[in-house]
Amino acid sequence: MLKGVGKMSQTKATQNGSNPYKLLFSINSPDDLRKLPLDKLPQVCQELRCFLIETLSNVGGHFASNLGAIELTTAIHYAFQTPKDKLIWDVGHQIYPHKILTGRRDILKSVRKIGGISGFPKREESIYDLYNTGHAGTSISQLLGEASARDHLGKDHKCVCVIGDASVACGMALEALNHGGELQTDCLVILNDNDMSISHNVGALNQYFSRLISSKLYHSWVRSWYKFVHWLPVIGPTLHLFSRRIERSFLEIFTPGGFFINLGFRYTGPIDGHNVKEIVHTLKRMKKLKGPLFLHVYTNKGRGFEPAESNPIYYHSVPKFNREDGSFSKKSPDDIVSFSQIVGETLLQLAKKNHRLVAITPAMIEGSGLRPLYDAMPERIYDVGIAEQHCVTFSGSLAAAGMVPFLCIYSTFLNRGLDQLIQDVALMNLPVRMIVDRAGCVGPDGETHQGLYDLGILLAVPNIHVYAPSNGAELQSFLYTMEKHEESPIAIRFPKASCHRSELKQREELMENKIQLGSPPSREPKTSGNGKALAILCIGTMWQNGLQLAEILEKERDITSTVIGLSWIRPLALDWMSQTLLTCRHFIIWEDSYLDSSAASYILQLLPPEIAGRRIHTFAFPSVAIEQGTREEIIEAYGLSPSAVFSFLDSHPIFSQKKSIS
Amino acid sequence: MLKGVGKMSQTKATQNGSNPYKLLFSINSPDDLRKLPLDKLPQVCQELRCFLIETLSNVGGHFASNLGAIELTTAIHYAFQTPKDKLIWDVGHQIYPHKILTGRRDILKSVRKIGGISGFPKREESIYDLYNTGHAGTSISQLLGEASARDHLGKDHKCVCVIGDASVACGMALEALNHGGELQTDCLVILNDNDMSISHNVGALNQYFSRLISSKLYHSWVRSWYKFVHWLPVIGPTLHLFSRRIERSFLEIFTPGGFFINLGFRYTGPIDGHNVKEIVHTLKRMKKLKGPLFLHVYTNKGRGFEPAESNPIYYHSVPKFNREDGSFSKKSPDDIVSFSQIVGETLLQLAKKNHRLVAITPAMIEGSGLRPLYDAMPERIYDVGIAEQHCVTFSGSLAAAGMVPFLCIYSTFLNRGLDQLIQDVALMNLPVRMIVDRAGCVGPDGETHQGLYDLGILLAVPNIHVYAPSNGAELQSFLYTMEKHEESPIAIRFPKASCHRSELKQREELMENKIQLGSPPSREPKTSGNGKALAILCIGTMWQNGLQLAEILEKERDITSTVIGLSWIRPLALDWMSQTLLTCRHFIIWEDSYLDSSAASYILQLLPPEIAGRRIHTFAFPSVAIEQGTREEIIEAYGLSPSAVFSFLDSHPIFSQKKSIS
Repeated sequence: MLKGVGKMSQTKATQNGSNPYKLLFSINSPDDLRKLPLDKLPQVCQELRCFLIETLSNVGGHFASNLGAIELTTAIHYAFQTPKDKLIWDVGHQIYPHKILTGRRDILKSVRKIGGISGFPKREESIYDLYNTGHAGTSISQLLGEASARDHLGKDHKCVCVIGDASVACGMALEALNHGGELQTDCLVILNDNDMSISHNVGALNQYFSRLISSKLYHSWVRSWYKFVHWLPVIGPTLHLFSRRIERSFLEIFTPGGFFINLGFRYTGPIDGHNVKEIVHTLKRMKKLKGPLFLHVYTNKGRGFEPAESNPIYYHSVPKFNREDGSFSKKSPDDIVSFSQIVGETLLQLAKKNHRLVAITPAMIEGSGLRPLYDAMPERIYDVGIAEQHCVTFSGSLAAAGMVPFLCIYSTFLNRGLDQLIQDVALMNLPVRMIVDRAGCVGPDGETHQGLYDLGILLAVPNIHVYAPSNGAELQSFLYTMEKHEESPIAIRFPKASCHRSELKQREELMENKIQLGSPPSREPKTSGNGKALAILCIGTMWQNGLQLAEILEKERDITSTVIGLSWIRPLALDWMSQTLLTCRHFIIWEDSYLDSSAASYILQLLPPEIAGRRIHTFAFPSVAIEQGTREEIIEAYGLSPSAVFSFLDSHPIFSQKKSIS
Repeated sequence: MLKGVGKMSQTKATQNGSNPYKLLFSINSPDDLRKLPLDKLPQVCQELRCFLIETLSNVGGHFASNLGAIELTTAIHYAFQTPKDKLIWDVGHQIYPHKILTGRRDILKSVRKIGGISGFPKREESIYDLYNTGHAGTSISQLLGEASARDHLGKDHKCVCVIGDASVACGMALEALNHGGELQTDCLVILNDNDMSISHNVGALNQYFSRLISSKLYHSWVRSWYKFVHWLPVIGPTLHLFSRRIERSFLEIFTPGGFFINLGFRYTGPIDGHNVKEIVHTLKRMKKLKGPLFLHVYTNKGRGFEPAESNPIYYHSVPKFNREDGSFSKKSPDDIVSFSQIVGETLLQLAKKNHRLVAITPAMIEGSGLRPLYDAMPERIYDVGIAEQHCVTFSGSLAAAGMVPFLCIYSTFLNRGLDQLIQDVALMNLPVRMIVDRAGCVGPDGETHQGLYDLGILLAVPNIHVYAPSNGAELQSFLYTMEKHEESPIAIRFPKASCHRSELKQREELMENKIQLGSPPSREPKTSGNGKALAILCIGTMWQNGLQLAEILEKERDITSTVIGLSWIRPLALDWMSQTLLTCRHFIIWEDSYLDSSAASYILQLLPPEIAGRRIHTFAFPSVAIEQGTREEIIEAYGLSPSAVFSFLDSHPIFSQKKSIS
């Protein structure tokens, strides 16, 4: 077990009895790192790995990817003059070693906490972080932007990005590679290949060639040859073409880089991403080359911590854990079931009965709860990789060709497929069933992962029906409704939430019976109470908050209210809504969404003006970047908790004569 | 000139004195085509070409791409059993020959007209059109969906798609190719390569190899070899890897298909896309092969009509034209300038003064009016191809690195870059200047090109400022404002519109002075009139309509109104707006957008409830697919013209006592 820590202890013992991080604690910026002799880098990496395991075992965070990127990060900062040279990280799941080496070692323990440092690159934190990221495949575009700006502004620094093997297959990364091959500006793309999904393992011969093709001699020889060929009359162009193809073919036989070579990059690799000295040597050789360069590095996720190395998906993002055996201390009780689990289990039930049902996911089998379905019926799941655009269109055509596709996607990633949702699904009214998970405010991942757009986005798309369940039982029963829904595309959106398993059963049986009888669930909102002073209109899971507020209002101020739980957002039960709101003096709207593109705006637009005028306030997120914290902390911080809404109402002029209006 | 028509006339004369379309007029479905002997296909193509030129010279439409796809379309319908075999077209700019051969010959003359047939594939028109398309790069995803559904449902038809060389470089097409290589289901991607952007021209040898590699013998030999290698103990896996690489290298040397081979497709080609018999032979050979197949076909845009062949971009989409010399009869008068031209000319002026200014476009240099800038300063334009995702992120990083990027994009294509706009621009508050052209209702391109989403989409994104000029002069002066705007991302949106050049000059000088004095344009809306009965709140160019309505109301019903022209949509001049609306008894909102995600919803949400309650109606498009017609016809059809709004108001209860309230 604990390979890294074990080895580290030895090293420690030999060199220094007291401080296990002797070198690491002397590095407060990459400049400090670069002052060390090359020989010391393996020890720096060893200390870094140990520090990372120690810290994250106490506070949790992204884990396996960070362990895999230690040597690569160290080598890049050593070989390049950061921050003068520009270093861009894709996604940022591997950013912790970078944060440690760039002056954030001591605050790493606050990572992903409210007020702490971000789990992703963050410009506001450090000049070494160029872009705030979180979604995959953006780094090559940013690399080209930095390099082009450098050329325009007459500067001469280097530009480097690091991208993983899953991200490089994103459509936008491929678009950028294609553009980079055409631009031919000086830049370096480093592929951190930790799935080894591109074929590998050609051993010593391969290493020899990877050195050869990154050597200056080889490049100058190749350039001279092309100059000569270019100068040749008549047969010049043809010979040029053939030479180019023969060169590519040579590289194709001895390296796995054919794909990138075809896109116009000079390929080097693959090299061992855990041999820090070899990476430094290669980077220093490559710094002297011109044009768009591509370095292919093999790494292992979870490197140096055996449990993570053997199950990197499980250790992708971790809570606090035991450093001895990698076990997690906190486990949720058996009767708690997450909304994602409800989706997975229900889809499996449905799939058993309906041979046309398939699920589609962009690289989120685990996160979307699809594991039970995948294990039982793998042929019913299409995992298309991080390819949201293709994912949506593919789902549309499955629907057109007679299947029953459930597209399972996180709210934040749905934005990537908006045009496809419009063009290839909604305008043709194809019955794609969308499961929009992680909607609303998401918590520790912070601003790049907020699911605050989906309501605005879905309502901007014609034809699509939108449903936001107020609890797990509604979610489950609505999945049955979706299976039968053929008249239009339909989306269900819900936050990362959970419920007691006991809440499900009864409702599920009920709903199944209902469906068998052919009656879909009512489109009318549900209500609680019948107070006339105030209607509390709650979207989706805000229903729970609304019930709490009603209690507080009654208890503290003797104000009786009606809580309205709106789950069917479009089509809206407009008549019902108008009549119900007409019986109350005032109303508020409460949702887990951005205000400027909220369900509230849509509802207010539809309500008869005289009723819309009775609204006191809409409680939703302001349209700004919403940072990290737990979901509860963020909801409290933005005044969306029951107590915060109570305080707001309590000081509102309309309620100053509380007693008289109740 | 007129190669096609010239040749055609000869053919005609020899064969038939009376009917120039003897064969073509006998084909009312692909079944009729398939009854003809192969020998007759060149004549069918000749007649088809002549018919296309004749029809489009009278009615206009997409032209050059259609001329280039005649032989390919004919060959596919001949070799495959459409509609049992599934045929999917990417984009659809090349769909006319397909429409002619599938029973829509006689109604082709109604193409792109209101009530006529669509200029793109359309499911509602024909069982031969599988998907409504218009945006590039969707066909491979749809192909895989069709093929996967076929496999699940136990059917055995063939699935084929045709994609152009520009579309195949779209991120989503690359995502789909990547998925297709993994799925290994039987399907055929035909690359219609008419830019020859992928290197070509290896002559006879190449033709030999393309036949070889599409032959059954070659494939069975290759399969046997891999079976043998797979069976070998110990050295098997290594030999397998090397064999695969050597095979690829062989194909790389003799074909330009390396890229597609790397993605896991069996590549055949390139072949001559105007030799209909060769295409049929190749397709029939390929029908017998398994797995994902790729056929590379070279064609010429505009083939057979010399002016179009030598300038395919100019003849991409044409109005009525002269068949003798290709000249267009209608030309707009010299003093009319389109909004796109205003952008191009102004950006050129600004670029001369600001060395940091660059423009970025996803393959729309002409459409976005950037030709003058491109001709004068090509180094200031980045045309990234059809790659909207990359385009947006690239622009964000140019801004981050100190440039002044103007991202020029059509409203309908902005949807493809939404996530990048959120993540890689807005959340970091990077000052990307977005020029959103073709916003609102677009006309003849129909539903897939409507710019009715942008307001909803832009307002769903945090931080971004949104401006909709009411006329050309405002557009021009605002471009000066945008250059100086560094505090946030900013977007300007406008429809395909134009104005008199004389309207520009004065305002432009005025604004330039203003800018030099450092005062940005007022954020307060402008008004016309001060009637108290009604405020007419117009977004962007609806200002013109508002003025007309005010005149009609005064003249016909003696009702005096105030017209409010709202250009700065976000940030909204809320105080000004509230005060002004407070002075009027009622108001309406009028815009060129989808109602469910309109600027109106956003404004109503922000206005104090007691003022929001004075609204009578919002005039905007219902959230359904809006079909083709001229912009004026569509606006009239959906009740958004001044006369339609007048009729609505005139019959509204609030205005039934007109006289008394004016």
